[in-house]
Amino acid sequence: MLSTPSYAAHSSQSPLVRHLISRRNVGPNDVQIAIEFCGVCHTDIHHSRNDWGRANYPMVPGHEIVGKVTALGANASHLKIGQQVAVGCFVNACRTCSSCQSDMEQYCLNGFTATYNSPSKDPGGFTYGGYSKSIVVNEHFVLKIPEGLDPAGAAPLLCAGITTYSPLKHWGVKPGMTVGVIGLGGLGHMGVKLSHAMGAKTVMITTSTGKAADAKRLGADAVLISSDAAAMQAMSNQFDFLLNTIPVAHDFNQYMPLLKVDGTMCIVGAIGATGELNSGPLVFGRRNVAGSLVGGIKETQEMLDFCGKHKITSDIEVISIDEINQAYERMIKSDVKYRFVIDMGSLA
Amino acid sequence: MLSTPSYAAHSSQSPLVRHLISRRNVGPNDVQIAIEFCGVCHTDIHHSRNDWGRANYPMVPGHEIVGKVTALGANASHLKIGQQVAVGCFVNACRTCSSCQSDMEQYCLNGFTATYNSPSKDPGGFTYGGYSKSIVVNEHFVLKIPEGLDPAGAAPLLCAGITTYSPLKHWGVKPGMTVGVIGLGGLGHMGVKLSHAMGAKTVMITTSTGKAADAKRLGADAVLISSDAAAMQAMSNQFDFLLNTIPVAHDFNQYMPLLKVDGTMCIVGAIGATGELNSGPLVFGRRNVAGSLVGGIKETQEMLDFCGKHKITSDIEVISIDEINQAYERMIKSDVKYRFVIDMGSLA
Repeated sequence: MLSTPSYAAHSSQSPLVRHLISRRNVGPNDVQIAIEFCGVCHTDIHHSRNDWGRANYPMVPGHEIVGKVTALGANASHLKIGQQVAVGCFVNACRTCSSCQSDMEQYCLNGFTATYNSPSKDPGGFTYGGYSKSIVVNEHFVLKIPEGLDPAGAAPLLCAGITTYSPLKHWGVKPGMTVGVIGLGGLGHMGVKLSHAMGAKTVMITTSTGKAADAKRLGADAVLISSDAAAMQAMSNQFDFLLNTIPVAHDFNQYMPLLKVDGTMCIVGAIGATGELNSGPLVFGRRNVAGSLVGGIKETQEMLDFCGKHKITSDIEVISIDEINQAYERMIKSDVKYRFVIDMGSLA
Repeated sequence: MLSTPSYAAHSSQSPLVRHLISRRNVGPNDVQIAIEFCGVCHTDIHHSRNDWGRANYPMVPGHEIVGKVTALGANASHLKIGQQVAVGCFVNACRTCSSCQSDMEQYCLNGFTATYNSPSKDPGGFTYGGYSKSIVVNEHFVLKIPEGLDPAGAAPLLCAGITTYSPLKHWGVKPGMTVGVIGLGGLGHMGVKLSHAMGAKTVMITTSTGKAADAKRLGADAVLISSDAAAMQAMSNQFDFLLNTIPVAHDFNQYMPLLKVDGTMCIVGAIGATGELNSGPLVFGRRNVAGSLVGGIKETQEMLDFCGKHKITSDIEVISIDEINQAYERMIKSDVKYRFVIDMGSLA
């Protein structure tokens, strides 16, 4: 079945995929995981279709992985056989640089090893991700899923969840603050849930009036329609923080006057050319434009524990592996509320 | 003489200028100042030539003003007749909003009154700036020049000085940090002097090898030539803070990888469309792009006292008022080291 989805269609070697998936042996610090669910991230589409020119085939995408421990290396002492665990966007980092020493492996100065399509010394070649029956990962990079959290709904927390949680925490979101979440998709819907759970007044900022009801269901206190110039003007200088989840280039300058003095808009959706910067709103209010990438392992565990406490999972649609190409097409049209998750039991 | 410079040449009313300059009476909270020196800022060219479409003629530019107190209102108790004082970029603000209450009048939510070309209730019409024999200003907006500081060299501190001091202070520049100052002009040369005096390792970042010697004379510990790709690569992740003083749109993305994780590049030169933003270096390092505007009154006094303590003034070329048009042309060609200051004694 793995040879039919589009993620493998570009590879002349696709028949090798099954053979290659489980090559890595369980080393002394490793954990072997039987994968139950894997979330589908927009990044999977970009990589599998080589949109960024960095694809290595055969490729097994997937970095929102939830499963159960099936084997442990001799030194992998913090987990148990049968435990519900998870793996996110990276599976290794140097662990010695200033970023790694500060629990920010996502900014490893020597470059982290991504969960898939990333060069790997063990076993050599490239890493293979979560669209698979199993994975072997160093225990440092394995997270624990809190009891009571639906494992399928928890899968997208490993990317969409931490990508929004980390900046909300870094910029100190808490009760008394007003947070705007720009864009309502896989990232945006998690941003709304998490900001709301952190106690901030949470405003969904969207071009689409049709999304208002759903935004409120997810936890938004209000909805601001960005094409309504008067409404935007009325909200000038009102926001402490903006989380921009729009995944493509756009006119982000229009949001900047919404921020208070010293406020920050953090970009987590678009990566690359994002649009012309107008420095005016930055200069006349000491405002900031920032970016943020997932989160470190310690922070990811903190996020999972936070979600366990607040009963937060992603809104998902569970699919079988043979629906993946259709899912990609629907994601490109934003036709999913709000994340596809593959039931890996469907992989023969 | 006032009718000849280009700043008045666009006005059909220029013969009125002299008459209008001193219309404002000295109110109870006001200070009358005999202007000795006025620095020439690039903003003066933009306003006087109506580059931003906001010119009000007749216009008297100038917001880097140094002079002596000649009259005081009954309530203006913190100054003395004959005292050496200064006026910067604004002469009023609401003083009640959250920004004003936090000593950040430059971000007044109700809009500050600029020193020139700004609507004013007293005496009505528009404010007139420092290319003049005298000015009347509310005492809250009048600064004290520390003893021993050359008054002509101090004039540019009121704009170029505070514009660079404020972000260096806000982003916590101190010994042990590495600061890059991008661009060596009126702002950049002050940025180098101030960053050096704050104890940071200060690197001048410029396209021009010809500026290296002068940058080091001003206090730079090193010079980084931004067109040297290998040199730029070698300095990746080395900077705590970048002060970007380039006054026009440019490819600012090239500087972002120089910053450490969580580092900030603050734009103080270009205002408006600044170039395409590539979010990549922001996302992969949680880096920030910010802006900053001059500084509040309290901070401006702090900056002047800091300059007094460290014997810092601007490198200037003193001109007479009838040389102003020639000075503008030379500024446009960056042909000044590093700021023109008008000796207002030359105004008949």
